[in-house]
Amino acid sequence: MQIPVVQKVLAANDLIAEELRAQFEESGLFVVNLLGSPGAGKTSLVERTLERVRRLKIGVIEGDLATSLDADRIACFGVPVVQINTGGACHLDAAMVRKALESLDASGLDVLLIENVGNLICPAQFDLGEACKAVVCSLPEGDDKVLKYPAIFSLASAVVLNKLDLLNHLNFNLPDFRRHLAELNPAAALMELSCLTGEGLDRWIEWLELGARNARELGGRLRSPARCRE
Amino acid sequence: MQIPVVQKVLAANDLIAEELRAQFEESGLFVVNLLGSPGAGKTSLVERTLERVRRLKIGVIEGDLATSLDADRIACFGVPVVQINTGGACHLDAAMVRKALESLDASGLDVLLIENVGNLICPAQFDLGEACKAVVCSLPEGDDKVLKYPAIFSLASAVVLNKLDLLNHLNFNLPDFRRHLAELNPAAALMELSCLTGEGLDRWIEWLELGARNARELGGRLRSPARCRE
Repeated sequence: MQIPVVQKVLAANDLIAEELRAQFEESGLFVVNLLGSPGAGKTSLVERTLERVRRLKIGVIEGDLATSLDADRIACFGVPVVQINTGGACHLDAAMVRKALESLDASGLDVLLIENVGNLICPAQFDLGEACKAVVCSLPEGDDKVLKYPAIFSLASAVVLNKLDLLNHLNFNLPDFRRHLAELNPAAALMELSCLTGEGLDRWIEWLELGARNARELGGRLRSPARCRE
Repeated sequence: MQIPVVQKVLAANDLIAEELRAQFEESGLFVVNLLGSPGAGKTSLVERTLERVRRLKIGVIEGDLATSLDADRIACFGVPVVQINTGGACHLDAAMVRKALESLDASGLDVLLIENVGNLICPAQFDLGEACKAVVCSLPEGDDKVLKYPAIFSLASAVVLNKLDLLNHLNFNLPDFRRHLAELNPAAALMELSCLTGEGLDRWIEWLELGARNARELGGRLRSPARCRE
């Protein structure tokens, strides 16, 4: 009984996601669905991005079970931001994003960053109409996460490995992590960085700028996340 | 359409969980449902527990989307262990535990540790027949996790705050974390420790030994997780 209903929910979600995707492509907006565990550093990555990117106009949608803590952090930067509280749901869905866009003026934006609920499993199933999924994970989570959560890593156009500053304080095997990702999803762009020290952030910013340029120039022809892979 | 089905699934789960709970209480077995984000250190906590506890017989059920990496780590200790691969599902349920118990001889055990799928949201909803839920979280996840994931922290009899060794390398406000937990769930036992250095592990071991003694002595009268709170 449960599985057919879940499939119906997913199919309904996909319809809305396709509407959103058409709308994003029409307006040349580059939309990134930011996924990751609680505390991986998704909000910190958005903050560092807003500090560093000057040539692009960026809007942000924040997804959380509860609180507006993350949106409050982002609002300090004076960019358009909307907080979605899922009230318990473990992922964002396309209808929530469509609703959030009623309160966020996306006209004139180059990039929309959607920070999903902290969860390495459920959000993978829900298309939000984004061009790319970017998974943020962090060294303290351990070097086995690609093996243990393959679904989400296999869908990622980009993988941001955060908290590189802690490398010397942890038993984290970086070559192993790289190898696991290369074997599962060789097309994913891996960016190793630290939102605390700023090390490695340039590559992430370049990736984002490239995606934004593609979205603007290719418009409706940017159908596949693969297009924004490096 | 979705919500009634989810309620039916939860009701079906609760029936099996109650059967399991009656069985665990009958045999005086102390069962702990270990919950937490990916990489919080649940498996490390189980390893350190098995190294330190001499007076109790402990069995382990490991839950993951994929791989038997965690069960392999535990098998080195020569204790009864079963790996459940959920094949994508974001939580364990009582039926999975009942099935796992067919392959794990629980007779003669004092404690059963069930390590749930790495997820700070969905596993909270699914009773596994345990006496207590213990949430493992870690300093690198940030000091705001109790506020952002209140459902799971409100159900915890114990909260293990792991990776205390990283305190000087992070912007983690320990008094804030303690205050958030005390306000949300004052009855939860908070244990701050490091699975790397061993600091603070004694209190966790004492909590576990106390729970095991209660389960053995109180048997069927140990109905509420509150009983094993300190």
